[in-house]
Amino acid sequence: MEHVRLRGEKVVLDTSLFVNPEVRGDFGGTPTEALEGFLFLAAQIPTVEFYMPSSTFKELLNFIEPDKVSGDLLTILHQKPPSKHELFCPAVLLYELIEDIRERINKGLRIAEKAVRSAHKSEKDIIQDLRRQYREALRDGIIDSKEDVDLILLAKELNALLVTADYGIIKWAEKFGIRWLLPNKFKDYILSSIKRYKIETADVKG
Amino acid sequence: MEHVRLRGEKVVLDTSLFVNPEVRGDFGGTPTEALEGFLFLAAQIPTVEFYMPSSTFKELLNFIEPDKVSGDLLTILHQKPPSKHELFCPAVLLYELIEDIRERINKGLRIAEKAVRSAHKSEKDIIQDLRRQYREALRDGIIDSKEDVDLILLAKELNALLVTADYGIIKWAEKFGIRWLLPNKFKDYILSSIKRYKIETADVKG
Repeated sequence: MEHVRLRGEKVVLDTSLFVNPEVRGDFGGTPTEALEGFLFLAAQIPTVEFYMPSSTFKELLNFIEPDKVSGDLLTILHQKPPSKHELFCPAVLLYELIEDIRERINKGLRIAEKAVRSAHKSEKDIIQDLRRQYREALRDGIIDSKEDVDLILLAKELNALLVTADYGIIKWAEKFGIRWLLPNKFKDYILSSIKRYKIETADVKG
Repeated sequence: MEHVRLRGEKVVLDTSLFVNPEVRGDFGGTPTEALEGFLFLAAQIPTVEFYMPSSTFKELLNFIEPDKVSGDLLTILHQKPPSKHELFCPAVLLYELIEDIRERINKGLRIAEKAVRSAHKSEKDIIQDLRRQYREALRDGIIDSKEDVDLILLAKELNALLVTADYGIIKWAEKFGIRWLLPNKFKDYILSSIKRYKIETADVKG
């Protein structure tokens, strides 16, 4: 068999693929099983490199039983922090971030004021509603942690496909010109990659 | 007299210099007088170029009476927006911004919860305290408007000295390696520049 040189594709994975019950089902019933299921399939496509930022991987460890996961994890899912001191962000994105946050902060205050004024409800209900509405207003659809920034910068650095269900991360992937995929399409992506790899290696052998 | 070539220094000005009652006193009693006072002194140092981002200048116009300001304004205080599509921000600063905002958002929620629970006070007092504390937690010491970003990027682009009293802007000037000066030192800076200019031109003439 000749040495096979196929197009190398890089993919950066978020934890939601294994942790979120709505999407991990494609690969396994529990986070550990989903990770194993992914590794089993990923091992069949040596042309695709899978990455996860170290910070995201650390989060993942909280959900899986490391003893039950095969050593393939270390060679198939590469842990790599972004080269954060070498990367730059277009300044114009700074404006968008600051304006977005400014609007959210104002909205947060209006929510808080409304909560103070809603005297007809029980304190417990008021606090519960406040928390939900406040978090929705200030956190949803925004990158709000260093893990989020890691995912975006690593995908940018590697020119990789970013697999995530986080709307805030997707919005920034769009700004940075990063290709992205929702986790519920990821099994199809893997199976298609396996099929293409088999066809291409068969061509080379033939 | 020979053609004089002195070191050109660039200075970016915030509005606080003319608007903030605590600092504008160095130049005049009202914002309009302070601006006139500045222009009178600035006209004596052709070696220093003064800039203000267009967005900041627009804010300044809300405080001054344009009819009463000399046309020197147009040739001495240059209005220039930063070249925001050509500038980049080190990605590592994105982490600091996101982490800072994350902590502030959490603090904002705690303040809102406390307000809901402070039933012993009148609603009016509660709302008043809430607004003050919330703004302190979420806005103080942070760049929170596109005018703030304009000041930082323009100073960076021009490699200029940034004159501002805003602590959030100063914090970012430090991150970007921008020289900064508090407005209450600015008159001394101007007077010293005038003195040095006179000495240097006298040397050239002599």
